Amino acid sequence: MVDVSGKPKILREATARGQISLKPETLRLVRERQIEKGDVISLAKVAGVLAAKKTSELVPLCHPLPLSTVNVTVETIGDSHITVEATVKAVAETGVEMEALTAVSAALLTVWDMTKGYEKNREGQYPTTAISQIQVLRKVKNDE
Amino acid sequence: MVDVSGKPKILREATARGQISLKPETLRLVRERQIEKGDVISLAKVAGVLAAKKTSELVPLCHPLPLSTVNVTVETIGDSHITVEATVKAVAETGVEMEALTAVSAALLTVWDMTKGYEKNREGQYPTTAISQIQVLRKVKNDE
Amino acid sequence: MVDVSGKPKILREATARGQISLKPETLRLVRERQIEKGDVISLAKVAGVLAAKKTSELVPLCHPLPLSTVNVTVETIGDSHITVEATVKAVAETGVEMEALTAVSAALLTVWDMTKGYEKNREGQYPTTAISQIQVLRKVKNDE
Amino acid sequence: MVDVSGKPKILREATARGQISLKPETLRLVRERQIEKGDVISLAKVAGVLAAKKTSELVPLCHPLPLSTVNVTVETIGDSHITVEATVKAVAETGVEMEALTAVSAALLTVWDMTKGYEKNREGQYPTTAISQIQVLRKVKNDE
Amino acid sequence: MVDVSGKPKILREATARGQISLKPETLRLVRERQIEKGDVISLAKVAGVLAAKKTSELVPLCHPLPLSTVNVTVETIGDSHITVEATVKAVAETGVEMEALTAVSAALLTVWDMTKGYEKNREGQYPTTAISQIQVLRKVKNDE
Amino acid sequence: MVDVSGKPKILREATARGQISLKPETLRLVRERQIEKGDVISLAKVAGVLAAKKTSELVPLCHPLPLSTVNVTVETIGDSHITVEATVKAVAETGVEMEALTAVSAALLTVWDMTKGYEKNREGQYPTTAISQIQVLRKVKNDE
Repeated sequence: MVDVSGKPKILREATARGQISLKPETLRLVRERQIEKGDVISLAKVAGVLAAKKTSELVPLCHPLPLSTVNVTVETIGDSHITVEATVKAVAETGVEMEALTAVSAALLTVWDMTKGYEKNREGQYPTTAISQIQVLRKVKNDE
Repeated sequence: MVDVSGKPKILREATARGQISLKPETLRLVRERQIEKGDVISLAKVAGVLAAKKTSELVPLCHPLPLSTVNVTVETIGDSHITVEATVKAVAETGVEMEALTAVSAALLTVWDMTKGYEKNREGQYPTTAISQIQVLRKVKNDE
Repeated sequence: MVDVSGKPKILREATARGQISLKPETLRLVRERQIEKGDVISLAKVAGVLAAKKTSELVPLCHPLPLSTVNVTVETIGDSHITVEATVKAVAETGVEMEALTAVSAALLTVWDMTKGYEKNREGQYPTTAISQIQVLRKVKNDE
Repeated sequence: MVDVSGKPKILREATARGQISLKPETLRLVRERQIEKGDVISLAKVAGVLAAKKTSELVPLCHPLPLSTVNVTVETIGDSHITVEATVKAVAETGVEMEALTAVSAALLTVWDMTKGYEKNREGQYPTTAISQIQVLRKVKNDE
Repeated sequence: MVDVSGKPKILREATARGQISLKPETLRLVRERQIEKGDVISLAKVAGVLAAKKTSELVPLCHPLPLSTVNVTVETIGDSHITVEATVKAVAETGVEMEALTAVSAALLTVWDMTKGYEKNREGQYPTTAISQIQVLRKVKNDE
Repeated sequence: MVDVSGKPKILREATARGQISLKPETLRLVRERQIEKGDVISLAKVAGVLAAKKTSELVPLCHPLPLSTVNVTVETIGDSHITVEATVKAVAETGVEMEALTAVSAALLTVWDMTKGYEKNREGQYPTTAISQIQVLRKVKNDE
């Protein structure tokens, strides 16, 4: 772990995003809130928030950070995508992009889990489901 | 959570994969084991194994499963990619694809974390780093 | 911890319930899904499910159990109550009432957390908010 | 999660309490430290302290807070009640009442778990055991 | 992680022990239950039991096992030692010696933590405190 | 838990160490990186870092601390020992020796787990393997 003991505590912010490709039929069911396991959008959001708080357990060299806020949005896009965007803030010695990326990853995994009964083909495989484009959109340091 | 109490316990197996795009210079340092934070490949593997065991904490509707094994491989590919592949097995009432996907996600996040000092541009942004193509390659039920 | 190594694995089921008293005005906002922090009902459900899986971490002498399902319902009742009911099943050597009670407790704490901005009086105190009547409604062993 | 990044860090304190009703015979055994699973009072205290530190994992929108202290007392009252009182302090941007309530809930669940062998009737049901009156007694902000 | 999917589930048992050296004056206070932080013996036991259940989180390649029981004893020995002994059982595909060793380690760390105010010298150092002789006393497989 | 709310936040540092005795043949395999389960040294390090961050979950009365860094070194010594040394820093109200000791303990347990196939005798027992000499080497407060 990088030693951050000499660094000043300043306001840090990071936004990450990512997406999952689903079958159009599955996406329609998500939109109409007819997925049997429950409301995909709202569960994915909670999973993202909770995962952000677990980042330092999941990513071995991350510092435990006192997160000021985690905000996760989950949106259906076009006829076959759901995007997740997570913004994390902390007054800390180091950045929060890993927390934002972890939130996005866990939210996308939750979408997969909740829709998997609809995504599997007859052989029980997932030929089209895929998580992609997980990126950091923006990282901000307010050090003035 | 789906009720699996009536289902038989059979051997389940699933393999997932995913990749992260890095700058060629970063990839070279990973290959030469010169990344300052340590050996990226070996840390990413451990992070994947540990995360697989935490799947039911991260993905709200997943069942806690008695994993028989988690195997994670991390490889540098060409001049700008690292791929992660995770295979999980369990004798259980339900499949282990979420565990394999969780292992892949955590391993890729760990690669990001360990290489981020090399991936950031002058403005502290990550214009090229991206996690993508997280998919389930194969799911097997041995129910005979 | 009681030694359960000699006991047979049979289907266990338990249902617990509990309630929280809120101000009528707060309850109205919950019903109309106007609580600023988000949808209370759906978050309380997820919190309950996740907590059930953590029971053996929270209650020191509980065994880690392979839960088959956790089902949490959250309902607004009359003009000042929300009730939570949780049903847990497992094929295990010991009962699952502690898991059901833990799910109920965490769901009720989540309701409190999400509504606390509306429940506090001018002095920042909670004169009326209270969690009560947490009980086990029913415990079943299917040992035939 | 509410954004607390602009808020000052001040000393926060909160006290919560709650109770569990047990059969007089069970309470007598608790008092005489004859419960087979061990000393109920001391285990309930530890469970409360540990749970307070897990609040942000259990209650999805709670912030992870650097607790300064958690103090849990567990007392037998009259012939059929045990009360738990928990006081939590932190120098933080937001209050600690959820931590105090979580400590109380986990301590009460632990009492239930340790006494359940004595509380069950012949049918394995708990007709009289109940957790109730979980409330916040007092919340203090030292912002001078 | 070793693949245990083909192995039979049999009753496993393991006992580990270890000790901590303390100053005679500290040991006397432990025996007389006058340590300010609370009853060392009983807290060390709980810490051991809880840690056994976390073994697969702490030791990266350990399998999550459905522990049947964890029994921890903590004893003061002579004028300067406390010994911890932990016995763990599980019906599982692999042994439970790591769980027993983890229980012993966490119990000994808890003794250290609770007595550290008495063990430090004027410079705040611990010249005599030491944990040692952590061993597996016995491992049993009941495979008949 | 000791109330640290009035204490100043200063830079704390602590170094702990410990060792494990292994058979010379096992140690040779560790050195030559031929242990079948993987690279013992690197896994033990990660396990130590992750465990330091879990100290307040494992040792009941420890405060959750915002660790600035955890540094773990693992070395083979002579023909039958591996030593682990862990240094932890935090800007906190209380010392970090428990975090350093926890890191050492978890790293040593991980060495045991990875080498246990080579350490067991024909009866499946561990006559020579032992963890010992876990001590705090140095504790520093930078309070000027």
